[in-house]
Amino acid sequence: MRAWCFTDGFGFESLHLVDRPDPEPGPRDVVIAMRAASLNFRDLVVLRGQHGRAVRPPLIPLSDGCGVVTATGAEVGDLAVGTRVAPAFFRNWQGGAPPQDLEAGRLGGPLDGVLATRVVAPADAVVRIPDHLSDAEAATLPCAGVTAWSALSEPRPARAGETVLILGTGGVALMALQLARVSGLRTVVTTSSDAKAERLRALGADIVIDRSATPDWARAVREATGGAGVDRVLELAGAETLPSSLKCVRTGGTILLIGNVTGNEATLFLPAILTRRVTLQSVTVGSRQDFEALVRALDLHGIRPVVDRTLPFEDAPEAFRTLETQAGFGNICVEIPGD
Amino acid sequence: MRAWCFTDGFGFESLHLVDRPDPEPGPRDVVIAMRAASLNFRDLVVLRGQHGRAVRPPLIPLSDGCGVVTATGAEVGDLAVGTRVAPAFFRNWQGGAPPQDLEAGRLGGPLDGVLATRVVAPADAVVRIPDHLSDAEAATLPCAGVTAWSALSEPRPARAGETVLILGTGGVALMALQLARVSGLRTVVTTSSDAKAERLRALGADIVIDRSATPDWARAVREATGGAGVDRVLELAGAETLPSSLKCVRTGGTILLIGNVTGNEATLFLPAILTRRVTLQSVTVGSRQDFEALVRALDLHGIRPVVDRTLPFEDAPEAFRTLETQAGFGNICVEIPGD
Amino acid sequence: MRAWCFTDGFGFESLHLVDRPDPEPGPRDVVIAMRAASLNFRDLVVLRGQHGRAVRPPLIPLSDGCGVVTATGAEVGDLAVGTRVAPAFFRNWQGGAPPQDLEAGRLGGPLDGVLATRVVAPADAVVRIPDHLSDAEAATLPCAGVTAWSALSEPRPARAGETVLILGTGGVALMALQLARVSGLRTVVTTSSDAKAERLRALGADIVIDRSATPDWARAVREATGGAGVDRVLELAGAETLPSSLKCVRTGGTILLIGNVTGNEATLFLPAILTRRVTLQSVTVGSRQDFEALVRALDLHGIRPVVDRTLPFEDAPEAFRTLETQAGFGNICVEIPGD
Amino acid sequence: MRAWCFTDGFGFESLHLVDRPDPEPGPRDVVIAMRAASLNFRDLVVLRGQHGRAVRPPLIPLSDGCGVVTATGAEVGDLAVGTRVAPAFFRNWQGGAPPQDLEAGRLGGPLDGVLATRVVAPADAVVRIPDHLSDAEAATLPCAGVTAWSALSEPRPARAGETVLILGTGGVALMALQLARVSGLRTVVTTSSDAKAERLRALGADIVIDRSATPDWARAVREATGGAGVDRVLELAGAETLPSSLKCVRTGGTILLIGNVTGNEATLFLPAILTRRVTLQSVTVGSRQDFEALVRALDLHGIRPVVDRTLPFEDAPEAFRTLETQAGFGNICVEIPGD
Repeated sequence: MRAWCFTDGFGFESLHLVDRPDPEPGPRDVVIAMRAASLNFRDLVVLRGQHGRAVRPPLIPLSDGCGVVTATGAEVGDLAVGTRVAPAFFRNWQGGAPPQDLEAGRLGGPLDGVLATRVVAPADAVVRIPDHLSDAEAATLPCAGVTAWSALSEPRPARAGETVLILGTGGVALMALQLARVSGLRTVVTTSSDAKAERLRALGADIVIDRSATPDWARAVREATGGAGVDRVLELAGAETLPSSLKCVRTGGTILLIGNVTGNEATLFLPAILTRRVTLQSVTVGSRQDFEALVRALDLHGIRPVVDRTLPFEDAPEAFRTLETQAGFGNICVEIPGD
Repeated sequence: MRAWCFTDGFGFESLHLVDRPDPEPGPRDVVIAMRAASLNFRDLVVLRGQHGRAVRPPLIPLSDGCGVVTATGAEVGDLAVGTRVAPAFFRNWQGGAPPQDLEAGRLGGPLDGVLATRVVAPADAVVRIPDHLSDAEAATLPCAGVTAWSALSEPRPARAGETVLILGTGGVALMALQLARVSGLRTVVTTSSDAKAERLRALGADIVIDRSATPDWARAVREATGGAGVDRVLELAGAETLPSSLKCVRTGGTILLIGNVTGNEATLFLPAILTRRVTLQSVTVGSRQDFEALVRALDLHGIRPVVDRTLPFEDAPEAFRTLETQAGFGNICVEIPGD
Repeated sequence: MRAWCFTDGFGFESLHLVDRPDPEPGPRDVVIAMRAASLNFRDLVVLRGQHGRAVRPPLIPLSDGCGVVTATGAEVGDLAVGTRVAPAFFRNWQGGAPPQDLEAGRLGGPLDGVLATRVVAPADAVVRIPDHLSDAEAATLPCAGVTAWSALSEPRPARAGETVLILGTGGVALMALQLARVSGLRTVVTTSSDAKAERLRALGADIVIDRSATPDWARAVREATGGAGVDRVLELAGAETLPSSLKCVRTGGTILLIGNVTGNEATLFLPAILTRRVTLQSVTVGSRQDFEALVRALDLHGIRPVVDRTLPFEDAPEAFRTLETQAGFGNICVEIPGD
Repeated sequence: MRAWCFTDGFGFESLHLVDRPDPEPGPRDVVIAMRAASLNFRDLVVLRGQHGRAVRPPLIPLSDGCGVVTATGAEVGDLAVGTRVAPAFFRNWQGGAPPQDLEAGRLGGPLDGVLATRVVAPADAVVRIPDHLSDAEAATLPCAGVTAWSALSEPRPARAGETVLILGTGGVALMALQLARVSGLRTVVTTSSDAKAERLRALGADIVIDRSATPDWARAVREATGGAGVDRVLELAGAETLPSSLKCVRTGGTILLIGNVTGNEATLFLPAILTRRVTLQSVTVGSRQDFEALVRALDLHGIRPVVDRTLPFEDAPEAFRTLETQAGFGNICVEIPGD
């Protein structure tokens, strides 16, 4: 098999295409011939060597990808060779509460990721993917897709008639927008470009707010909700926007903490939380059960993740650079060839 | 004011149109000039005098109706004269867990109901109704509408991609079908008439099963779900269908107990529940908060309750007789004139 | 290894002590030298051949047991040789919603059980057990203990000040009583023997009702709760008692369906459920996460399961016969020798 | 009646003892002859005029108090004259989700509070209080008591065996400690005084950490939990301690945001939340239903709130000064005489 690998450090200079022995499945494992992978902001943090001590080279990057089962262990009953699947983001979270060693089970660091021609995974950490999706589309599901699903499901599922504010136009944001729409939610999305605003409306956004044209976008959000504020904010940006997100949420509402693209150190004005019973809940992707629930929804509604572009396997480093610009609309993917 | 009233007993022979003094609002009350009312199966049970000792004549029947605020008490701040509203089914359930004296707070028995030209109600037991609904449509919301909402919200809200089985074509069933559709659920509905099957499909039912043509409809439901069973059953029929409903629900699924039209004494095969972690939860309409959540969903999606027919106030007894036939599709309503 | 096995049918006549090759662990498995096992009512159903088609001979019976890890697979990181553990009841339920193939993952049928000197199990389906318990005590946890835990945790955890009614004095009942006590619940327990009543009080039962002396025990329960009824009923008996249990539960309360010792066909009076928003939820043991939560509670409070008696391995059939009499107080266990 | 009142501004100089006409009950109101009141940190914020525009003089301060019903309106059925009761903190929150105008319903600002000889309140915003409590003890329940209850109940009730970290020794902290103990939780409490440490142990604290002697108390907390962290933090202090609280909570755990005594502007390190699925939920006292659930628990277990001291009505300003020192252990109360 071939794989991209941070061989002896992080950064572009340490990211090399290497040859490795083909993986062998244990009795409860499957081997997957990967077909596509997809990048998340976390993969940039890994590239920059900023992900903490547990994530160390040598490491095959990327958590999100899909492929086809090519071999199964002796005890694997329900995943036939030829099935198109994606490995779950966490190898150790089947459902319920997250395990205490959650961080140890992540693909793309500390565990080897999916930017490889072949991957081995436990059969119970692998999910079938919908037929109507291209490989690149399906590759976006394990982290970006499941995160969007969880963000609309926690702490309890959003219900038709509620309003959700989605910050941004990355892969999680656009999947959340599509899921919110089929779930009967009213959607408010912020962006900073006219062209993206147009595309958001085409995807079904009820209200699009241009942050460039509307610096006080929090006020615009409140006005769009008759002054009450939204039921739920998908806080994908982080330190810079969190204070405004807090102004957007209604009494009793929830801010889902998802991203920290704009910074790690957020300032919270406590009285605005304390007197209005606001919940801030982090979304840490989700379990295999969440992934399966997402797949059912995509299947029923024919939803397709938005892929901004797909680069060839050989140009994988370029995919990281493209993601860094944050200029995209949706997911940046990499095609993976047969070996 | 004028009202229909069970004057000194139950049954059609005791149901009379009477004159009563106009109600005066207390400091936290509103007076509503009623415009329409709607019947539920429970109203038949009251008519038949089978509702238990707490429900006694004299009694103005019917829990579901809407009207316009004509007077407000001194402490009522947020409900202006002229607002179109519906009284909540329970006068004593604002939200959260049901109060222990829940049954004492029901309109249409033991409390006087809405089949009257004027009704007085506490301002916090009254809900604004959507502008896009006719009076008759809005009249169906307090019991039938809220019941449908609760049946998709308990014990936790249904999520896009899940499958719900709805038994029948009464007011609750058709509202649940419409709500399920905008919530992204897959819907399976049973009926016993070709004509109704056609209308169910027009309302968006994904799968319609004709119980006349398919006596083993439980098997048909399982086949429609790849053998797994549905996530949720809206059990609107009662004793006759419950054993089949149990066969339709998947492991870990929920049966919402709502109606008992087909009988009160149901037989449950316990092993089928015990080994598959099935929940049976009764839906007892819902709180004022549930009503408000329903209204938001109807507003956003422009959903209209299905009204089978609307009879004039003078023919109110005929409305009971029509409901008794169970031949209708949706709600049986009564128009209420100004006085 | 040696094991009791239903070799070619069910019933006592088919239950034989056999020799089998020692199990080898796969990469993610552990081998456990069993020390004790414990019986549940379900094991009698298996013995009688009444458990349905999926449970077939040859079969090693019993789901509940504990032992010591003697070997671990290459990928097992956190379970050292020498650790005392119990296999989880379900091999395929880590947490969250039960899997659709839940029934296929049960020990003691359809999977081989624990009445054997050695058992192999996936490391993620095995739980460390508290030091303060004897082997026999620990053996009762996987099904009886976890069931009691779930019965106080679903659909949401019981809170201090609530009242729980527990029917009976078997292993689940007595563990539930002890857990309820440390959780601050008020406990009402029914029994039919003076001697047992005494022991229930010693275990901390707040109110003990003798069903022999008080045939209308449902009324006694209501009176003990000021007429309101209990928040939660642990329905361990089944068809015979369910109608009375329904009379005992308060408006908005929950009946946890757990046992069917007294029969499979229960009759439900629907109006008593429909008008009072009662939930009937089955308890199907629980997941590995539930087991771990139970262990934390036992550890903190030094709770010990009640063992009625422990029989030697060679007399295992006698343990089934003892359970059949239903005369015991707590769990019937079997000691398992080294091989 | 007599009352303390911020007559034309805030601060001690505007706090005067005034005479007012006795209140008259509306049809659904009760009049309460107050017997005791209790102070919370929020009352200091009001005194300082820092509570925002909605809270304006003239204003009778304090939200927490108890008294005896002396008159009832015509429609009040279940609260007899002579019943000892406490008004709920929020006049407009019966149960379920908090209403959108939650802040408008608070006693002690913007609504008149309880530092008065007579108070009128809606019967459904009043709760009976346990017989075993003194007036001063009972006076602490509406805000301090209910906040402690909610902090152990949200987002789902804590379960026996879990560990809770409680910061401080004010009224909320000490009630939470006592409730946690009867609920079977393991408790870790921080303080900065030897004398208080002793009293905390006497109240049942499992682990007491002296923050003066242990500046890195977050590390001490983690060590006390085997490195895993606690399930739940009651964050009563605010800006200064929140970063440490975040280090104390386990993966998947919850920080209940309750107080801001140490400052309003908290800094959050987002990655520590995002990768470990931590929830921060504010506790905004609770609903009347929460209050009633608290009362049941206090009743069953004979729990008594800790009263640091009780001052005479005439010295009410001194009670504010005492609270300002933060040197107390438990609640600062005021006796209210008959008029």
